[in-house]
Amino acid sequence: MPDDSFHVFDTTLRDGAQREGVNLTIADKLAIARLLDEFGVGFIEGGWPGSNPKDTEFFQRATHELPLEHAQLTAFGATRRAGVRAADDPQVAALRDSGAPVVTLVAKSDVRHVEHALRTTPEENLAMIADTVAHLRDSGQRVFLDCEHFFDGYRYDPEYAVSVVRTAADAGADVVVLCDTNGGMLPADVTEIVTTVGERTGVRLGMHAQDDSGCAVANTLAAVDAGATHVQCTANGYGERVGNANLFTVVGDLALKYGRPVLPDGCLSEMTRVSLAVAEIVNIAPATHQPYVGVSAFAHKAGLHASAIKVDPDLYQHTEPTLVGNDMRMLVSDMAGRASIELKAKELGLDLGEDREVLGRVVDRVKTLEQSGYSFEAADASLELLLREELGRQVRYFETESWRVIAERGGAADAWPAAPGATPGQEGGEAVSEATVKLYVKGERVIATAEGNGPVNALDRALRSAVEGVYTALASLSLTDYKVRILEDGAGTGAITRILVTFSDGRSEWTTVGVGENVIDASWIALEQAVSYGLLAQGYPAP
Amino acid sequence: MPDDSFHVFDTTLRDGAQREGVNLTIADKLAIARLLDEFGVGFIEGGWPGSNPKDTEFFQRATHELPLEHAQLTAFGATRRAGVRAADDPQVAALRDSGAPVVTLVAKSDVRHVEHALRTTPEENLAMIADTVAHLRDSGQRVFLDCEHFFDGYRYDPEYAVSVVRTAADAGADVVVLCDTNGGMLPADVTEIVTTVGERTGVRLGMHAQDDSGCAVANTLAAVDAGATHVQCTANGYGERVGNANLFTVVGDLALKYGRPVLPDGCLSEMTRVSLAVAEIVNIAPATHQPYVGVSAFAHKAGLHASAIKVDPDLYQHTEPTLVGNDMRMLVSDMAGRASIELKAKELGLDLGEDREVLGRVVDRVKTLEQSGYSFEAADASLELLLREELGRQVRYFETESWRVIAERGGAADAWPAAPGATPGQEGGEAVSEATVKLYVKGERVIATAEGNGPVNALDRALRSAVEGVYTALASLSLTDYKVRILEDGAGTGAITRILVTFSDGRSEWTTVGVGENVIDASWIALEQAVSYGLLAQGYPAP
Repeated sequence: MPDDSFHVFDTTLRDGAQREGVNLTIADKLAIARLLDEFGVGFIEGGWPGSNPKDTEFFQRATHELPLEHAQLTAFGATRRAGVRAADDPQVAALRDSGAPVVTLVAKSDVRHVEHALRTTPEENLAMIADTVAHLRDSGQRVFLDCEHFFDGYRYDPEYAVSVVRTAADAGADVVVLCDTNGGMLPADVTEIVTTVGERTGVRLGMHAQDDSGCAVANTLAAVDAGATHVQCTANGYGERVGNANLFTVVGDLALKYGRPVLPDGCLSEMTRVSLAVAEIVNIAPATHQPYVGVSAFAHKAGLHASAIKVDPDLYQHTEPTLVGNDMRMLVSDMAGRASIELKAKELGLDLGEDREVLGRVVDRVKTLEQSGYSFEAADASLELLLREELGRQVRYFETESWRVIAERGGAADAWPAAPGATPGQEGGEAVSEATVKLYVKGERVIATAEGNGPVNALDRALRSAVEGVYTALASLSLTDYKVRILEDGAGTGAITRILVTFSDGRSEWTTVGVGENVIDASWIALEQAVSYGLLAQGYPAP
Repeated sequence: MPDDSFHVFDTTLRDGAQREGVNLTIADKLAIARLLDEFGVGFIEGGWPGSNPKDTEFFQRATHELPLEHAQLTAFGATRRAGVRAADDPQVAALRDSGAPVVTLVAKSDVRHVEHALRTTPEENLAMIADTVAHLRDSGQRVFLDCEHFFDGYRYDPEYAVSVVRTAADAGADVVVLCDTNGGMLPADVTEIVTTVGERTGVRLGMHAQDDSGCAVANTLAAVDAGATHVQCTANGYGERVGNANLFTVVGDLALKYGRPVLPDGCLSEMTRVSLAVAEIVNIAPATHQPYVGVSAFAHKAGLHASAIKVDPDLYQHTEPTLVGNDMRMLVSDMAGRASIELKAKELGLDLGEDREVLGRVVDRVKTLEQSGYSFEAADASLELLLREELGRQVRYFETESWRVIAERGGAADAWPAAPGATPGQEGGEAVSEATVKLYVKGERVIATAEGNGPVNALDRALRSAVEGVYTALASLSLTDYKVRILEDGAGTGAITRILVTFSDGRSEWTTVGVGENVIDASWIALEQAVSYGLLAQGYPAP
């Protein structure tokens, strides 16, 4: 359990929410706070009470509803306005009365911003800092001070920037956080400036890095190297413009590369789960290529590696993936062979272990399928169905007799929307899609027809309509992603199409693959598998 | 114009293609190479000739079809096998005969990998390096050597790692590239090791960083700080697992933070365009939060900033966005802003020059279309048709009354090919697609029906069959590429589809775009435009 000597400070709910497209409800914020606490961060900056009703209500509810085990709730706000007493400033009062045991105050430390944005004097800015810190301290709160635009300000006027740090510490701020607000610093700059400021002031320093130079993580580590003992980060690096230092990458690097126990025992392995869950709540597709926690973070593809990985995985990964709750995942591509499939089967819990013959058959089929355009890299569910077939454990909830799709558009169909504001593909008569499927479900012949907004949507609906009567749980499964890839250039519309279909049951997701010259046929193959796999996962006995 | 003193080396086509889900055709690779050359990189690593037929063909075509202005084409490959002469190794011969003026050889520099993966002796590995470098040098090629797993290897056995560097340089390698293959290094490690190796060997060093610690960019810069003068990167950071050092971030940092002219004059501002175009070709949604080139990279949201930004933008951005071809507060629709459309019109030979009103109308339509999913990045022909419409010079070789597609499969349609060797989608009855179009061509109503191997192929054939009688040159135009992108995650088969269709007349190519909920409808929109544009290009007077 880390003591107060090093702070992992999360600002997902405040600075992370500045990311374009993010709009968190109070329930979202409470759920994310719970996850961050499970991950073991020391401080959760929840927002700016008093700045808007949502943040005010969040603090009211959080102080009652959140049984935080590791983290302390932190309120963010500004120093008092120029020319008023801190005690008389309603914005400061909202911080004082927020119920948060810790307040992070933001202050200007670049004299140009003091003059042009704040429109006050450098001296009054220092007084605003001193008064506000002292007032909140007197009211029993712990205070950290964020120095906005510190690095740019330091370069322009180092004496003024340093005086801000000294003023805050003298007034009782426990940590003074140097912010690269515009995100343009590089690690060498950070090392130099943090070292100098630390030596000149003796104040406990923190780092807040934005990623505009692609160096937010490295800048945070550089500050730690230079003596900072407080790092401000956001889950998955969410934040304004390019984003903030990624909490998971910084913590992973500190814990696993520096060997610094910055989280409570047992929390590090929650990393991948927490990262995915936060992405889910924020409603942003998880960054598959994120360090440590991305689904691709420990996935191997190159044929150069595949055979050797079995010998000694540590030769091919920078850290052990289970430490961060992730897993090594072999991509089954034409570059990899037998070894990868064996590993994959183990991962799926299907034992091919001793049966060399089955393994050989699976390898052959995978190779043949991959030559004809299949790819199992992203289609775990298809691979599992294939392995089951070869193990004699094939699932067959229904059998297809035939399907048919009709798509048409009548009435002067035009090339594209002629007038601004028109919806594409809507003028000149309507495009209509209709699908009919004929299936055998538990021996009964079923015919179903459905319309859709496109041919595959119509097929999906017709298939559901035919099967749902017997397998009612199908209604709770939904198609969440549909990807099309055209293979083989030069062949135009006669080329091979690869379809990836992803279904979800609300808890987990699975992806299947279909291939063919005909985009609808390939879609049908993937759809059929996705439904079969879903019924299997729902617990229907495999017929 | 940078001389040979600093190398920007791009490996998107080789190492970037290791990214999960990426599968580049030869045409994709040629198109990306052209873009990278326009961006001004010094070297384009095109793949591994001899390792697979696609890469071999790429080099054959690239040496003839690519008029590279700035870059040199580079072949990647391994040192000779143990126990054979370099001249007798077919893999080395493929590099020698690739036509590439530069070869990057990969070699083991971690003695554990030599023994466990390569299964040879440390001495033989050095001999393999020396022989292969010398053989390629003798055949007139420039040679760089990639030291795989260099940093891990150096930590385990620094003497052996250093001997690899010396051996390669002594044999004639111009640059020895230190690779953080597992991506686990931090900038401080890189600074220390690159500095030491440089001092001990005096060899010209390069850096190849993977991003597993979230520090690939910073590690690359750390190597440059320590004296490296060659950086290996990939467009948008594509690469295995987490990815590689991002070309655009590294170049942006070097050019704008270090003030190092690493690109030819005028190229830096191509950065955003090239980044987006590569993403389009690779068929990965552009990373909106990428440094410098992301659509959010200079977008401001925080209320704290918004008011002040007007006063002095430079106080709130780390660099001037136009330097990298980006823009402050740039939304997707704004990318095709007034100036770029004007420029584009000029490029297409259409003079909008004085007519501000027409220009305004075009900008509005482009914005509206982009909001509904259109993208003109890769669809010049569509943009030209749109400009013509607004100039009152619309082409209309035919008018569509209606179209209809029927796709079906009968007879026990199976999930996928059951037996090795079977063609996917062929068993259990045949999938059949048939299209009927009703058009007016020069005032005559024409009805044509055709079959195809898929619905879009059938539509293409029916359209040709209806129009070819009057416009006979249509027979010489062929559909060469067809791309599908599903927009809006999470909406499944109900999502918006963007289709790009490329036609060729054997001399030049043109691409059009169609958008809609229905994949067939969107395809029809793009097809119709592609044929119209083709007839125009063939010189038929625009009716």
